[in-house]
Amino acid sequence: MFYLIGLGLGDAKDITVKGLEIVKKCDKVYLEAYTSILTIGKEALETFYGRTLTLADRELCESNIDDILKEAKDIEIALLVVGDPLGATTHTDMLLRAKELGVKTQIVHNASIMNAVSCCGLQLYNFGETVSIPFWTDTWKPDSFFEKIIANYSRNLHTLCLLDIKVKEPTEESLTKKVRTYMDPKFMSVKDAAIQLVQIIDAKPDCGIQRDCTAVGLSRVGAPDQRISVMTLEAMQMSDLGPPLHSLVIPAPNLHPLELDYLSQFR
Amino acid sequence: MFYLIGLGLGDAKDITVKGLEIVKKCDKVYLEAYTSILTIGKEALETFYGRTLTLADRELCESNIDDILKEAKDIEIALLVVGDPLGATTHTDMLLRAKELGVKTQIVHNASIMNAVSCCGLQLYNFGETVSIPFWTDTWKPDSFFEKIIANYSRNLHTLCLLDIKVKEPTEESLTKKVRTYMDPKFMSVKDAAIQLVQIIDAKPDCGIQRDCTAVGLSRVGAPDQRISVMTLEAMQMSDLGPPLHSLVIPAPNLHPLELDYLSQFR
Repeated sequence: MFYLIGLGLGDAKDITVKGLEIVKKCDKVYLEAYTSILTIGKEALETFYGRTLTLADRELCESNIDDILKEAKDIEIALLVVGDPLGATTHTDMLLRAKELGVKTQIVHNASIMNAVSCCGLQLYNFGETVSIPFWTDTWKPDSFFEKIIANYSRNLHTLCLLDIKVKEPTEESLTKKVRTYMDPKFMSVKDAAIQLVQIIDAKPDCGIQRDCTAVGLSRVGAPDQRISVMTLEAMQMSDLGPPLHSLVIPAPNLHPLELDYLSQFR
Repeated sequence: MFYLIGLGLGDAKDITVKGLEIVKKCDKVYLEAYTSILTIGKEALETFYGRTLTLADRELCESNIDDILKEAKDIEIALLVVGDPLGATTHTDMLLRAKELGVKTQIVHNASIMNAVSCCGLQLYNFGETVSIPFWTDTWKPDSFFEKIIANYSRNLHTLCLLDIKVKEPTEESLTKKVRTYMDPKFMSVKDAAIQLVQIIDAKPDCGIQRDCTAVGLSRVGAPDQRISVMTLEAMQMSDLGPPLHSLVIPAPNLHPLELDYLSQFR
């Protein structure tokens, strides 16, 4: 059996009772560590579960998943994923592979940023399409996601912006070498995101969104030190919401009075 | 302290470890029973928690919430909500009232249909605005939500349709009387929803969506007897996905190959 178990967003105790029971009984438990991270580390989880975990990086999840799945024909294997296990395409793909290989699977859902974002008071059913904002480099500055923000905004919908994370990314130099070296982990802050967004807006003066539009910055949603901050996108370029993970929301231009009331406590 | 605790979607064990600890230590625990329902009943939850629960209906949550919140100044009170506690406006409103009254609050997130819908293989970030489909009556057949489905569809986005539930709704006759009588609980099935949607499409032949468009029916997401069924909307009028709760998705017209592959197992 192959279990995909969501860990939720905050700390070790955000796993469900069902998830915890499965973790305790499994023969092997992997912790997925590249589509998202928990605010606590692997060791804290191991202490709480009373067992060891194996870190699963991108290579393991994408290239070597068949080996794990084949093993799951005979033994019980769980893969722990921060948030909900089906938030990322990788895991849907795993379930399809499992089906092809004849391996039984079970999903244990949990909160993800896609629903917990409602903690800022913006109503979930008023969100449009979610976008991902990638880190820009000197030579690569994609902005196609911004069209989706504009489309949501023009329909008076909020946009949740998932911010890039880089965990165990090979350095460019090492791609052509035998031994890979990896970059330090990097997590986009709401400040980084705001700086890129303002550059895009400045280059598209008629896009309908101004640099003084409202932005909602969220950090460590679900954790005890969760922070929510509401200001103009312009001001967010100078903000500091502390350690990762961060998310950003561009709210619809016209908010429901309840949404306005709720947001105002974070200004 | 006032806790809003999400129960997730399946059974008693879908509560988080954090949520369960709070339930066990609280002085009073209410179970919200009108924005959604769990596939198991109050008694099963009471057995699992080892304590009694008080049902909280709409009247209690909307009109008498201040009394509960005032009590929460001195004692520990939890309100249990199926799914994630901030899926419905009611609960955001409660948190604002708590703040006004100077009552401390804590939210314990969990999976909701808004993210667990990804179990059908459609990617969450390709969903547009969520809509709610209300039960029609002989004299009241609203269809304004359909414009949102069209808008999503034309942008190649999926639409999650939340289906109406009626729990402890006063009968029309009793509204003017001293003693209220209540209707039997009623839960919209994907069949009911498809029948209403096909009527709307037939009345709007140029809307861009045809009655033979693909529809995804989901029932009891997260429970062991979860069912997912993919067929044309037309065929869904004759479907039976078993007991509630049901949800319906109108997928985007052009799907990602991975989405197509995944959906095909439910055809």
